[in-house]
Amino acid sequence: MNHNLISYVPNLKVFDCTLRDGGLVNDSFFTDDFARALYQANLKAGVDYMEFGYKCSKQIFDSDRFGKWKFCDEEDIRAIVGDNHTDLKLSVMADVGRCDYQNDIIPKTDSVIDTIRIATYVNAIPTCIDMIEDAKNKGYETTANIMAVSKVNGDDLKNSLELLGQSDVDVIYLVDSFGSFYPEQIRRLTDQYMEICTKYGKKMGVHAHNNQQLAFANTLEAMNKGDGATYLDATVSGLGRGAGNCHLEMLLSFLRNPKYKTIPVLKFIEKYILPLREQGLVWGYDVPYLLTGQLNAHPSFAIKFIKEGRQDYYNFFHELIDDTL
Amino acid sequence: MNHNLISYVPNLKVFDCTLRDGGLVNDSFFTDDFARALYQANLKAGVDYMEFGYKCSKQIFDSDRFGKWKFCDEEDIRAIVGDNHTDLKLSVMADVGRCDYQNDIIPKTDSVIDTIRIATYVNAIPTCIDMIEDAKNKGYETTANIMAVSKVNGDDLKNSLELLGQSDVDVIYLVDSFGSFYPEQIRRLTDQYMEICTKYGKKMGVHAHNNQQLAFANTLEAMNKGDGATYLDATVSGLGRGAGNCHLEMLLSFLRNPKYKTIPVLKFIEKYILPLREQGLVWGYDVPYLLTGQLNAHPSFAIKFIKEGRQDYYNFFHELIDDTL
Repeated sequence: MNHNLISYVPNLKVFDCTLRDGGLVNDSFFTDDFARALYQANLKAGVDYMEFGYKCSKQIFDSDRFGKWKFCDEEDIRAIVGDNHTDLKLSVMADVGRCDYQNDIIPKTDSVIDTIRIATYVNAIPTCIDMIEDAKNKGYETTANIMAVSKVNGDDLKNSLELLGQSDVDVIYLVDSFGSFYPEQIRRLTDQYMEICTKYGKKMGVHAHNNQQLAFANTLEAMNKGDGATYLDATVSGLGRGAGNCHLEMLLSFLRNPKYKTIPVLKFIEKYILPLREQGLVWGYDVPYLLTGQLNAHPSFAIKFIKEGRQDYYNFFHELIDDTL
Repeated sequence: MNHNLISYVPNLKVFDCTLRDGGLVNDSFFTDDFARALYQANLKAGVDYMEFGYKCSKQIFDSDRFGKWKFCDEEDIRAIVGDNHTDLKLSVMADVGRCDYQNDIIPKTDSVIDTIRIATYVNAIPTCIDMIEDAKNKGYETTANIMAVSKVNGDDLKNSLELLGQSDVDVIYLVDSFGSFYPEQIRRLTDQYMEICTKYGKKMGVHAHNNQQLAFANTLEAMNKGDGATYLDATVSGLGRGAGNCHLEMLLSFLRNPKYKTIPVLKFIEKYILPLREQGLVWGYDVPYLLTGQLNAHPSFAIKFIKEGRQDYYNFFHELIDDTL
């Protein structure tokens, strides 16, 4: 594609997951005001996709314990976007095993949602593929996001990618759930994912976490100057579980496509993100995330450590080794 | 060198600059207790070099306004390290134009310092080379650190590297003063620096800044799996001017050489770095640094913005464009 920092790659898609991944920090309790301002900021910034939240089953999750963006009812999204007569596509994430997809995902003709993103572990690929077929039949664009790849053995990943390649899915996502990959691993995985994507005519996406302050760098690495991932996930100020995500403002400041603007996002940070921090919401890089990332452990250990107000990194490191390796 | 994340590159040198770059945050007012604990942590962590501070002239800088590590008198370093009968090499930084090197740098035979690092702008390369010769004649290892390379035109950089290649310097450093380089630029610059280093038998170093959260990623990129920079600068928790540096704990957690240990650094963070933050010392990534990094502007603008307690990123972005481009 010959992206060289002066030219630009035209077919990239910037994918804002602030409400969805950020919902893991506040149980999806974002106000309509917040969601509306984010929607407006994304529109003005030229962002390509905005993910509103999860499509979780109310049979499985108590709707009193979570905000509306855990469930993304059609009328709740429409309250923010109307009929969304814009170029900004809307998505929701459906987790394998947490979504009553046959019933809760309505036909596309009745929905403002454009894209269903299906998050799966490698051991649930057949269900993931059933969800892909269900959503495709209902008229949606779909993505398959294989989580926790850093814990998956090589054969299982190879077989999973092959099955997804043969499915109707549109985009296959490389997801660094634990923020444990270094750029050179992202490069190798990108080559592996792209081999399948090229063979079967799929697009590739990347979703990075910032445990080792590598989310932005790994996103650039997976993009591979336009020859790799074209769906690039990010969240405003990295808002997301634990160490958070690739910062949307970093990604936009890097991209040269004149359609992208950083300023609407800066204004959103001033008005909506800084108050979240002042209210006590905690996310972003910290030493405990480096340690879980380095050890390829679930960030839940670090989240708990921070929530308890602990700062004894040395003990934590030993606990991690005992409990996770 | 075939570094593949399981094997390791034996000839890397981890270079701790915490006292020196951190001194730009607190005018070099570190206590002896802090310096001694850092020295002990570096020893236990297997760090290869520790930089104590600047070798600034007391004719130019008021010794009442700065701590002792701005000047690094021989007796002050010896108060921490004795005769330093260890494998940890000691260095000081001498800035072109701010150091009375003929008088203030004593013969190596009388000093515990091993390495003189000379920081220069591209327009002062001849003075830099005079300082190199002076230090080499006195018996020191030397490095040349060309600052603000992101502002230097291609011909000037090429000619500077050629002159340094022909000099007696041991190590030539790639320095991303403004934290403005992306990994793909670091890769290209590494190739350029390594061409000179290979031709003239020099080693290459890298000193990254974290304005775009790329300091660690760019350090890995310059290292190029052992075929690039072998002198890798870092500071504990990134302590350094503005957005700070590559975090020492990140670098150590990446390296596989069994001589390196992360735990002594974690203990140092618990006991000595967290209190600095509690005392109000401010450093590390923040949105204003992203903007100066992106615009290839001096971080002083962002440091001032943060010191004034401002959070109006949008106005700041426009001021930056007006004042720096």
